[in-house]
Amino acid sequence: MSFNTFGRVFRFSTWGESHGPALGAVVDGCPPGLELSEGDIQPYLDARRPGQSKYTTQRQEPDQVKILSGIFEGKTTGTPISLMIENVDQRSKDYSEVAKAYRPGHADYAYDQKYGFRDYRGGGRSSARETAARVAAGAVARLAIPEVSIRAWVAEIGGDAIDMANFNTNDIGNNPFFCPDAKAAKRWEALVDGARKAGSSLGAIIACEATGVPAGWGAPVYAKLDSELAAAMMTINATKGVEIGDGFASARLRGEENADAMRPGNERARFLANHSGGTAGGISTGQPVFCRVAFKPTSSILTPVETIDRDGKATEISTKGRHDPCVGIRGVPVVEAMMALVLADQKLLHRAQCG
Amino acid sequence: MSFNTFGRVFRFSTWGESHGPALGAVVDGCPPGLELSEGDIQPYLDARRPGQSKYTTQRQEPDQVKILSGIFEGKTTGTPISLMIENVDQRSKDYSEVAKAYRPGHADYAYDQKYGFRDYRGGGRSSARETAARVAAGAVARLAIPEVSIRAWVAEIGGDAIDMANFNTNDIGNNPFFCPDAKAAKRWEALVDGARKAGSSLGAIIACEATGVPAGWGAPVYAKLDSELAAAMMTINATKGVEIGDGFASARLRGEENADAMRPGNERARFLANHSGGTAGGISTGQPVFCRVAFKPTSSILTPVETIDRDGKATEISTKGRHDPCVGIRGVPVVEAMMALVLADQKLLHRAQCG
Amino acid sequence: MSFNTFGRVFRFSTWGESHGPALGAVVDGCPPGLELSEGDIQPYLDARRPGQSKYTTQRQEPDQVKILSGIFEGKTTGTPISLMIENVDQRSKDYSEVAKAYRPGHADYAYDQKYGFRDYRGGGRSSARETAARVAAGAVARLAIPEVSIRAWVAEIGGDAIDMANFNTNDIGNNPFFCPDAKAAKRWEALVDGARKAGSSLGAIIACEATGVPAGWGAPVYAKLDSELAAAMMTINATKGVEIGDGFASARLRGEENADAMRPGNERARFLANHSGGTAGGISTGQPVFCRVAFKPTSSILTPVETIDRDGKATEISTKGRHDPCVGIRGVPVVEAMMALVLADQKLLHRAQCG
Amino acid sequence: MSFNTFGRVFRFSTWGESHGPALGAVVDGCPPGLELSEGDIQPYLDARRPGQSKYTTQRQEPDQVKILSGIFEGKTTGTPISLMIENVDQRSKDYSEVAKAYRPGHADYAYDQKYGFRDYRGGGRSSARETAARVAAGAVARLAIPEVSIRAWVAEIGGDAIDMANFNTNDIGNNPFFCPDAKAAKRWEALVDGARKAGSSLGAIIACEATGVPAGWGAPVYAKLDSELAAAMMTINATKGVEIGDGFASARLRGEENADAMRPGNERARFLANHSGGTAGGISTGQPVFCRVAFKPTSSILTPVETIDRDGKATEISTKGRHDPCVGIRGVPVVEAMMALVLADQKLLHRAQCG
Repeated sequence: MSFNTFGRVFRFSTWGESHGPALGAVVDGCPPGLELSEGDIQPYLDARRPGQSKYTTQRQEPDQVKILSGIFEGKTTGTPISLMIENVDQRSKDYSEVAKAYRPGHADYAYDQKYGFRDYRGGGRSSARETAARVAAGAVARLAIPEVSIRAWVAEIGGDAIDMANFNTNDIGNNPFFCPDAKAAKRWEALVDGARKAGSSLGAIIACEATGVPAGWGAPVYAKLDSELAAAMMTINATKGVEIGDGFASARLRGEENADAMRPGNERARFLANHSGGTAGGISTGQPVFCRVAFKPTSSILTPVETIDRDGKATEISTKGRHDPCVGIRGVPVVEAMMALVLADQKLLHRAQCG
Repeated sequence: MSFNTFGRVFRFSTWGESHGPALGAVVDGCPPGLELSEGDIQPYLDARRPGQSKYTTQRQEPDQVKILSGIFEGKTTGTPISLMIENVDQRSKDYSEVAKAYRPGHADYAYDQKYGFRDYRGGGRSSARETAARVAAGAVARLAIPEVSIRAWVAEIGGDAIDMANFNTNDIGNNPFFCPDAKAAKRWEALVDGARKAGSSLGAIIACEATGVPAGWGAPVYAKLDSELAAAMMTINATKGVEIGDGFASARLRGEENADAMRPGNERARFLANHSGGTAGGISTGQPVFCRVAFKPTSSILTPVETIDRDGKATEISTKGRHDPCVGIRGVPVVEAMMALVLADQKLLHRAQCG
Repeated sequence: MSFNTFGRVFRFSTWGESHGPALGAVVDGCPPGLELSEGDIQPYLDARRPGQSKYTTQRQEPDQVKILSGIFEGKTTGTPISLMIENVDQRSKDYSEVAKAYRPGHADYAYDQKYGFRDYRGGGRSSARETAARVAAGAVARLAIPEVSIRAWVAEIGGDAIDMANFNTNDIGNNPFFCPDAKAAKRWEALVDGARKAGSSLGAIIACEATGVPAGWGAPVYAKLDSELAAAMMTINATKGVEIGDGFASARLRGEENADAMRPGNERARFLANHSGGTAGGISTGQPVFCRVAFKPTSSILTPVETIDRDGKATEISTKGRHDPCVGIRGVPVVEAMMALVLADQKLLHRAQCG
Repeated sequence: MSFNTFGRVFRFSTWGESHGPALGAVVDGCPPGLELSEGDIQPYLDARRPGQSKYTTQRQEPDQVKILSGIFEGKTTGTPISLMIENVDQRSKDYSEVAKAYRPGHADYAYDQKYGFRDYRGGGRSSARETAARVAAGAVARLAIPEVSIRAWVAEIGGDAIDMANFNTNDIGNNPFFCPDAKAAKRWEALVDGARKAGSSLGAIIACEATGVPAGWGAPVYAKLDSELAAAMMTINATKGVEIGDGFASARLRGEENADAMRPGNERARFLANHSGGTAGGISTGQPVFCRVAFKPTSSILTPVETIDRDGKATEISTKGRHDPCVGIRGVPVVEAMMALVLADQKLLHRAQCG
């Protein structure tokens, strides 16, 4: 099935393709009375917008959001909020090659197998342009969780990780890589530009932290906060892994190393560590919620790769045109949006059951 | 909220606590006409059953499943299948310490913050005993996807990984660790027993592969196969990370290394590699679906850890009693069950939309 | 699909067949901390229990409920509450005729067409015994809405309606018909007994009122309180119609007759009438929520009816055995349960969105 | 909560208010490969469009639909189909009275109680303009069930019912009332015009029949076809009752009168009657699916009615402006759309489980 809705009570649905007239999101279940205007959403779209440096795709999309419903006199009414972003830069490119041959790493082959045909223009529904709609929805979600602060950053590109000793929140906005380590950002300039020039691409790891989440959000089993976050992050294009807290590293710790000991402290408890990433038994502990997401290298590369065409014949394909050399970079605002959307949903669910 | 149901059309709900009279699962949406008896389920429960070696908890639970509905003359009727497992070995232990103090790494503190109180006997609903119900449900799911073969194994314990050069499927069942590398299994004996004797615990990584999944299962956006699998795996107790295909390692590859090139071949296409783990754009490609899951070390350890009690006062706790020194090991049948449950659901969803 | 779950955040799933070992319900999403024991549920099951007068089926079922999970020290924990009722009186009847021929008005033919075969013993999953599970779930729901009082009654049997001038709440429990009009109850004795003796059956209309529902539960469009109630009532066996407030009669009123005028009054507003049945725009108004449900006559009758057998050959069937001459009568506790289940869900949903 | 999505696998979500810039629907889960253009949708919107006779509101809305996604080369792709209708005739009316006082029968008071405030312009989200979005979605649903023919008609206005002896399908489109009885249509001219001139309004009953539905769609318990239809119909503005088959009348029949006897016949079986309205046990029987829906009289009337204002003070209100004297009439295309949407969903669900 084609499930284009995420969330349980604070829900959003997205629609739209890369080369259609527009794309959008419908946010349903938002609490009433929140002040919301297009100005609250646009900055997040601007952060995600392509074409802002040579390290991202040169496609130029203004990504101006319009609110079509759900607002009255500047406030959310509690009814669905329809958000629309018109597609502008749909360059009349020649898609005849992509129409016929399957690009390895892309959804082309899988879509054809599933649906019998596909909208091959810019990847159609499989394009990462869909994430613009989520970023817009995420901006609404943030308003529903004013107690929470969310920030994500690129922690690693092409295997070159930041040094936590250099971590500076303020640096995240000061470079084209959402990098909190100024030295790493410097290194990445050459790394990413090199990949771009070589017609190659790089993977990345994004980290995301939410502070201010009170203890008690989440659920014991099939709506564990860990599970909801993992599901959310793994819907983002090009993601192949997610971990909460120490994640895979915790599989290499011993029990006494991994224990997040507690002492009496402010607001209930003070934790001496946060290996768990802010959850226990699937429920938030009041510590920062922390996750990391792995993005594979952009599948669109200039290097020719062996493939087959729609008739099953051998061919070769290389993807020309405007592509992100490291698609993970522009994933930062998307990861933040998904974190916000999950937490807004969990807040409302907690309130439903526990008052 | 307390969401104890997983799946969209092939769905299951579980219920039950560690020390209640029983636990169970209700499987809803199963196709009619499948031959099903308790004998089809019991072997999977037996594989998960504790107390079978000194490397797992000594709790003795026969875990005998009873089918209470949904079967007529040995076949599924299409109506809900109720599965029940009675709890037998509920040792009348003294829980007064756990009742008062919060065990770090456990759900104790989070449950109290969420619900105001908790069933502290054996962890209540947060106990991994809940996974017995999923294993039973998973056995039903397997019948709905006869075209698929699923096998999981332990790929790493406490940082000691198997060598893929030694990989032998037949070895998985020949040691108490579900280990496909006989040499690693030998090493793990000392490793796990050492942790057990030291009152410590170890993390693990489980790998799971499903072969026979045809191309076309999954969906473009919020029901991506990757997302469904990640959600499923991250509902299992003690999991902190999941990756599909090369996962985090793919974030360190270059685009041309990560491309799964294709050639003409049997049944549509032959792939030269499977970095993607059998999915593209969230939809199966016909290659083996592959994922890895990180389990943290068992939180119940003998080493005393600083903590607080229900009144917020400082104290110390160490968890005596019967515990798995490496909870990941017994996760193998659970990971397989979740893989089966996700794939059965996706098969039916694909059939719904695409006929 | 086989959807055996109802509700959005306060949800319940039922399982079980007429002649299986047991049937049950899993209630999920119940708020924690509510006092609940089997004694809170049993009286509702007793009210529904068959065999209590000659006007209902003589099948004898003790319908003793067991709580298998979700309770600790007498209180709901917030985790799923598993309720089980064992089937006792499964008379070893000869079902060979029903196995072969389709009983008109029953689900036999439709089940065979859908599933290819069916559990024909007592109707299997289509048996009204399933409603015992809902009545048990409904008793839990009542605890979640202590502000609400619910009572249902039989308003009409076989076309003979009660006279509202004789309406007396106290009479409802004083006759075997849940009839609030003592005179009508008297008339119904002969009416129902006559039908029973003639091997015929009668339809009925049940009315249900919930007082204490505050203004604001429900939703503007696809979770309108009217819609949720209609869906809930129409899942009950043998129901063929539902109306809220004046229902079909309101289609014969003029606008000024149907207007529920308001005056200043206690708690916000005083309504001068309640044609709307306590809802406006799908949301509760604070007035009593009122609905009526039509039950067709029991399909199991002694009169032989033309039908076909599984091979498509002409035959005739008459249903011997223990049947309710008016299945609507025992629908009263079921209608009340569904009202409670819908309102509990709506209360939690309202709290989720509007705090 | 604000649930603006309907359906389980063939789902649609609507958004938009009476006086916002636009309204729309997102259809998700539609099978791929169906030919769809705006021309397939527009005729249904035209049938619903206001201002076409003096018997409906004089609001002039072109209701031109635009397809914004989900179509490629004239065919559905299997991804979400976004449909948008711009609001054009938003007359800059003075809403100050409605802003302050509560119109009896309208959602005004309930919305204020639920959300704390409301978009009072034309009723905001509670306006029947939302049904334009469903009619558009319903046109898509029809394409997914080409085996089914759906037609609805007005069966009764203000208590004046059609005579089935005069029933002629061809007449439905020949009068402004969707009336299949030419004589009744004639009578209704005076009836409706009289109500309009008197500033009053009338209720109506709509009947809807779907032929071609094969046996086997629906489900035993909480997705009974009866329940899904009832839920769907009761989400339409101004509806207060729904019945399947003989509905409330069946409650006055005896068992032998209500039995739909069968004889051997074409395609499995020939039924001698259809009291059940095409369902048994919640599953379609292969007979026409038939339901009736009660619409209350339009709440907007010129007659002044007692009410209160937002401050709880007594006042009086009469609703001037452009209103349908009988809102039920324009419900016909909406009822048809909901029938189509339910059946498309059930078809896909049946295919999911039963192949």
